[in-house]
Amino acid sequence: MLKTAEQTKVDIRRLDFAFATGAAVRELCRTGWSDRTTGMARGYYQANLAIVPERYAFDFMLFCQRNPKPCPILEVLDPGDPEIKTVALGADVRTDLPRYRIYRDGKLAGEFTDIRKHYRKDHVAFLLGCSFSVDLLLHQLGVEVPYFDGETGILGAYATSIQCAKAGVFSGPQVAFLRIIPKSVLIPVIETTSRYPLAHGGPIHVGDPREIGIKDISRPSYGEYRPPNEEEVHAFWSCGVTPQAVAMAAGLPELISHAPAHMFVTDMKLGGPATGPFC
Amino acid sequence: MLKTAEQTKVDIRRLDFAFATGAAVRELCRTGWSDRTTGMARGYYQANLAIVPERYAFDFMLFCQRNPKPCPILEVLDPGDPEIKTVALGADVRTDLPRYRIYRDGKLAGEFTDIRKHYRKDHVAFLLGCSFSVDLLLHQLGVEVPYFDGETGILGAYATSIQCAKAGVFSGPQVAFLRIIPKSVLIPVIETTSRYPLAHGGPIHVGDPREIGIKDISRPSYGEYRPPNEEEVHAFWSCGVTPQAVAMAAGLPELISHAPAHMFVTDMKLGGPATGPFC
Repeated sequence: MLKTAEQTKVDIRRLDFAFATGAAVRELCRTGWSDRTTGMARGYYQANLAIVPERYAFDFMLFCQRNPKPCPILEVLDPGDPEIKTVALGADVRTDLPRYRIYRDGKLAGEFTDIRKHYRKDHVAFLLGCSFSVDLLLHQLGVEVPYFDGETGILGAYATSIQCAKAGVFSGPQVAFLRIIPKSVLIPVIETTSRYPLAHGGPIHVGDPREIGIKDISRPSYGEYRPPNEEEVHAFWSCGVTPQAVAMAAGLPELISHAPAHMFVTDMKLGGPATGPFC
Repeated sequence: MLKTAEQTKVDIRRLDFAFATGAAVRELCRTGWSDRTTGMARGYYQANLAIVPERYAFDFMLFCQRNPKPCPILEVLDPGDPEIKTVALGADVRTDLPRYRIYRDGKLAGEFTDIRKHYRKDHVAFLLGCSFSVDLLLHQLGVEVPYFDGETGILGAYATSIQCAKAGVFSGPQVAFLRIIPKSVLIPVIETTSRYPLAHGGPIHVGDPREIGIKDISRPSYGEYRPPNEEEVHAFWSCGVTPQAVAMAAGLPELISHAPAHMFVTDMKLGGPATGPFC
């Protein structure tokens, strides 16, 4: 079951899966899709992946619990177990994401589309909430979501001066991502996102990027930037890249994550039934 | 700073602290109060305490995450750290509860009003949500809260046939507690409690106790029972005793908890600002 990503791309466009189910997108990932999940399975929760060695698992979970805005926990697997039990019944964390990264001693060691060869018995997988989950609601409020109307575009992410609460070896600043928000809908945007703590909740800052330590807004660490016009403002949300950045800074001997924007898509819909972590 | 509980009881009545702050009740516990916290500091979150050896901490936290109804996590302390950092700034988990229990190999080994001699560097303290937190709201809806109008009375708790999701050595049935609810306010009671997932959220069952495996409702495992009249129904909520029962069943070499109904009272008010685990 080798992925033939380049060939798949020719046949399949992201927007064909805009309103597909989470299960359909995961099936696509297992059989060849190795591109970003932005704009796909709209209205479903997407998730960040962080896999850490078991001896770091308690400290990492503690870090997530103490920093619920950047690290909302959706599900944590038993050590060595690749099977997701709650947010996507029967899915396999080793194959069902489009693209993975492996870091060793805090440095990128490789990018993979399947990690079955790399997933060990002492690995613990964390699925953490992702902001893509609320894209559909924001789009309905009139917020620009760059990848909703075309195949490309990605939001910018930035290191900030806001420090996370420490836990064991894990500490460091929050990473935030930027949305350009029309001033006319700023309040409903705050209200709406605040209702979804498992997708990072409300923003952590609105206005001048320098107030949260971002010196050059035009140069995101990841993604793209366009300046707001006079009717718009900068608004920042806690980003799910934070736990990865913190684990890298701790020089963890091993960390496996999704590649940026190449997320795990769950079976849980926004506004779905209240069950498990969603109750 | 020896406690002179019996003497204190003569001078202080629980109802004098009905509308005290969480900090005032903790001060009282440090200086002599060793009785239940039912009906005290109304409107403040109260918490269950479970202290486990560090090598069980990840599995126990995983158990809590997988069973958010009985085990909503308010705060977890660093191994060996007695100081609460978030839900009650600067409070000491070893002295600020009125009464503790120590279990060894699954059996009660003693009851204490102070655990400074027993709290070790490899101990990890978990504060988990408690239903007393929503008593004031239910009372305002017209629900009987037996200890609100007098000094005595306690709700009944029961083992059920509802199994918790397993994590490591931790598995077993949910413990539920019973409230007698007037049928006329059942829906607002469900709506109201559902808004407070950190105080066990909505009920897990309404109606016939046998449907959740309770054979003799007149004999609670803990607490008291009075039958409903024709205008009332039985309603059950997940109980914070569940993690204790599960840890005891696992035969944990050591477990320290609050004594039943002798809770930790936090600084967090229902309807307070959205911060930390309350956001």
